[in-house]
Amino acid sequence: MKFPATGPLLTDLYQFTMIQAYLDAGMVEEAVFEFFVRKLPQGRNFLIAAGLEQVLRYLESLVFSPQELEWLERAGGFNRRFIDYLAELRFAGEVHAMPEGTAFFPNEPILRVTAPIPVAQLVESRIINLLNFETLIASKAARCVLAAPGKFLVDFGLRRAHGAEAGLLASRASYLAGFSGTSAVLAGAELDIPVFGTMAHSFIQAHATEREAFAHFAAARPRNVTFLIDTYDTEAAAQKVVDLAPALLAQGVSIRSVRLDSGDLAAHAFKVRRILDAGGLARVGIFCSGGLDEYALRDLLSGGAPIDGFGVGTALDVSADSPCLDAAYKLQEYAGQARRKRSEGKATWPGRKQVYRRFAGDGTIAGDMLTLESDPQEGAPLIVPVMRGGQRLAQESLARLRARAAAELARLPQELRRLEDCATPYPVEVSRSLRELAEELDRQPH
Amino acid sequence: MKFPATGPLLTDLYQFTMIQAYLDAGMVEEAVFEFFVRKLPQGRNFLIAAGLEQVLRYLESLVFSPQELEWLERAGGFNRRFIDYLAELRFAGEVHAMPEGTAFFPNEPILRVTAPIPVAQLVESRIINLLNFETLIASKAARCVLAAPGKFLVDFGLRRAHGAEAGLLASRASYLAGFSGTSAVLAGAELDIPVFGTMAHSFIQAHATEREAFAHFAAARPRNVTFLIDTYDTEAAAQKVVDLAPALLAQGVSIRSVRLDSGDLAAHAFKVRRILDAGGLARVGIFCSGGLDEYALRDLLSGGAPIDGFGVGTALDVSADSPCLDAAYKLQEYAGQARRKRSEGKATWPGRKQVYRRFAGDGTIAGDMLTLESDPQEGAPLIVPVMRGGQRLAQESLARLRARAAAELARLPQELRRLEDCATPYPVEVSRSLRELAEELDRQPH
Repeated sequence: MKFPATGPLLTDLYQFTMIQAYLDAGMVEEAVFEFFVRKLPQGRNFLIAAGLEQVLRYLESLVFSPQELEWLERAGGFNRRFIDYLAELRFAGEVHAMPEGTAFFPNEPILRVTAPIPVAQLVESRIINLLNFETLIASKAARCVLAAPGKFLVDFGLRRAHGAEAGLLASRASYLAGFSGTSAVLAGAELDIPVFGTMAHSFIQAHATEREAFAHFAAARPRNVTFLIDTYDTEAAAQKVVDLAPALLAQGVSIRSVRLDSGDLAAHAFKVRRILDAGGLARVGIFCSGGLDEYALRDLLSGGAPIDGFGVGTALDVSADSPCLDAAYKLQEYAGQARRKRSEGKATWPGRKQVYRRFAGDGTIAGDMLTLESDPQEGAPLIVPVMRGGQRLAQESLARLRARAAAELARLPQELRRLEDCATPYPVEVSRSLRELAEELDRQPH
Repeated sequence: MKFPATGPLLTDLYQFTMIQAYLDAGMVEEAVFEFFVRKLPQGRNFLIAAGLEQVLRYLESLVFSPQELEWLERAGGFNRRFIDYLAELRFAGEVHAMPEGTAFFPNEPILRVTAPIPVAQLVESRIINLLNFETLIASKAARCVLAAPGKFLVDFGLRRAHGAEAGLLASRASYLAGFSGTSAVLAGAELDIPVFGTMAHSFIQAHATEREAFAHFAAARPRNVTFLIDTYDTEAAAQKVVDLAPALLAQGVSIRSVRLDSGDLAAHAFKVRRILDAGGLARVGIFCSGGLDEYALRDLLSGGAPIDGFGVGTALDVSADSPCLDAAYKLQEYAGQARRKRSEGKATWPGRKQVYRRFAGDGTIAGDMLTLESDPQEGAPLIVPVMRGGQRLAQESLARLRARAAAELARLPQELRRLEDCATPYPVEVSRSLRELAEELDRQPH
């Protein structure tokens, strides 16, 4: 590529057009933008915030190269004032956010950017691009975790993810939300996420016999071997594993599991479990994959299928039943004045906001209050400062984010843990101060 | 990032595990893999092949850095023979493919890789990752083009695309399929795709009045201005454009269009058209955006709404109604022997294949024959050599791919142009030679 794939040209043209207009009009005062989700996708009762780490890295490293400026001037037709401004541009603003792993609800901001309006506007496209996707996947993964408590869950979706970055960030978001790991090697190398893998059908097919394929595979990687057993006849292959096991164990091979990837997984799992148990392989687990999602996990487990782990691929990495969020990054304040978008069906709550959360006696979450930052309410504030003067205030490890997400899932009331829409959505109240501000703005001329 | 985002570690762990097993077993003979789609997503009657250019670039540049090898050896626990093999590994194989922009159907390979099995296996994950996504988006975009013939269509989806690469490649795939351009600046800089943009609601909101915002915007970028008019009251804003127009035109501003982004777009478009026409702005177009997809485009236009162009965002960039393809990259031959996967519901057609297409008298496509490469049939062969010895045979410009896609759409029979499932799917026959080979393989022991 001629230009960095995640550099400042990864934005919408109108951001640049607006920046030039702001500069020409001398409008460079402080703006406040907030990112929030307007409504939950169907079937979702909560979302898990994710992607902040990537947003902060993007903001820290925001700089235009001479090549990028040259392109904007030549092909974009922007003026000298604009080019000079971009040449000096760095993100030196403030960011407030809900920490990654936090459960959140519609209209609650999970990120607030405070910076001169040309800068705060420029970063919109990439901020939405990152938060929308990682939050989407973390939320989908959390549903799988709720559907298969205590099971070994692996992200298998790299190949069906939408491009390279989606594959990497889906691994991150799903691990954050409670998955055990991923099949994507880059996620291990780059982010220290545990990487797991088995074998492909092609490996079996390339050999004259399934038995030979199993033997070659075990010899090459003798620790914690998983055999793929559905290439030809699942139960026959399970019996082959039993037959091979004594010789393999004698060679020091440890067999972790067998993998089923097609057909009626529950029926096969019951039969395979009996074959393995009868063959002395009671400690060899059954791992399933193949078009699974949180509903399939729930149904397999509620039917008592003896399955120890799941590879979840496409449905997770593209959030198949809901591949996007109705998310927005909206201007809430400019030059000290609160602002409100009033478009039909898309009105926003104005000003710098905070969310206060209340808890029930058993520790579960009981209700949120959306309010102005200047008007504290009862409960725990969820939005904290994370960057000041363009400098991060702290960095949390992925392990810590993962622990937070687990704690958040544990605090969800039963009603919100369902895979279907709950009868009574989680209560998010809007404070009186915020309502009054919105009404006041609606009375202003425009 | 510590490692290249699109380098050879962007693969599934099992590829490496299998490579080590192949090397240990001395299995490095030639393998043939083919990429195909098992079945069409609901509502789709054809697909448009896309992503080959990115696959060929990936194969050309495939090389492991010392850092990547070091990580694999240390963290991956792979042996010396494996590391040495990867250190020398380059893609020196053959690739055959359907050219990008070609319409294709289930079970028809659009890519064939011929290389030593460790190499052909390694590249699986990224090949699927690229072809699956770009084909998905090109196919979705083609439906928008069919739904809004002759209209100005712009990809607005960067912010909701799944990460950075998805944003860029969605711009490419939709342009290839007939869109006029994109809002993503990087797609212009990197791929020379026309870039378009208007203004955001935040720009209007940052100003004290809408009128002032319009004036500032027009002054900064006076050519082909598009005014966003739905921030407060759409028709009132249209009247403001009319009122401002004489002064703007006197300053040399050219007004291209107004943009509607919320509410009942058809109703607003009719009213706004009347306001513009009455105000002497008959040549100012109406551009619509806001949660649109191919169905919305069809419905708006079939209702006669006076709309000249559309920004299509989320629904396009995530292919919202069908965010993935049931695509696979499967072993078809190893060491000169045809291979066949026989898993339940996932059986494949073996061997090196070719697709022959027949045409009706009016030039529309009439039926395909899936056959062995060694058994030519009537019609035009669709799969051509594109890389030999790791070297590309030719490179097609994006303009040429776009022309091909347009020609392909023009050759679709009426039945396939519908947005809903057609009653009779396009006929794809399987040749006798291919059926016989499959049956023969099914009789072999395993």
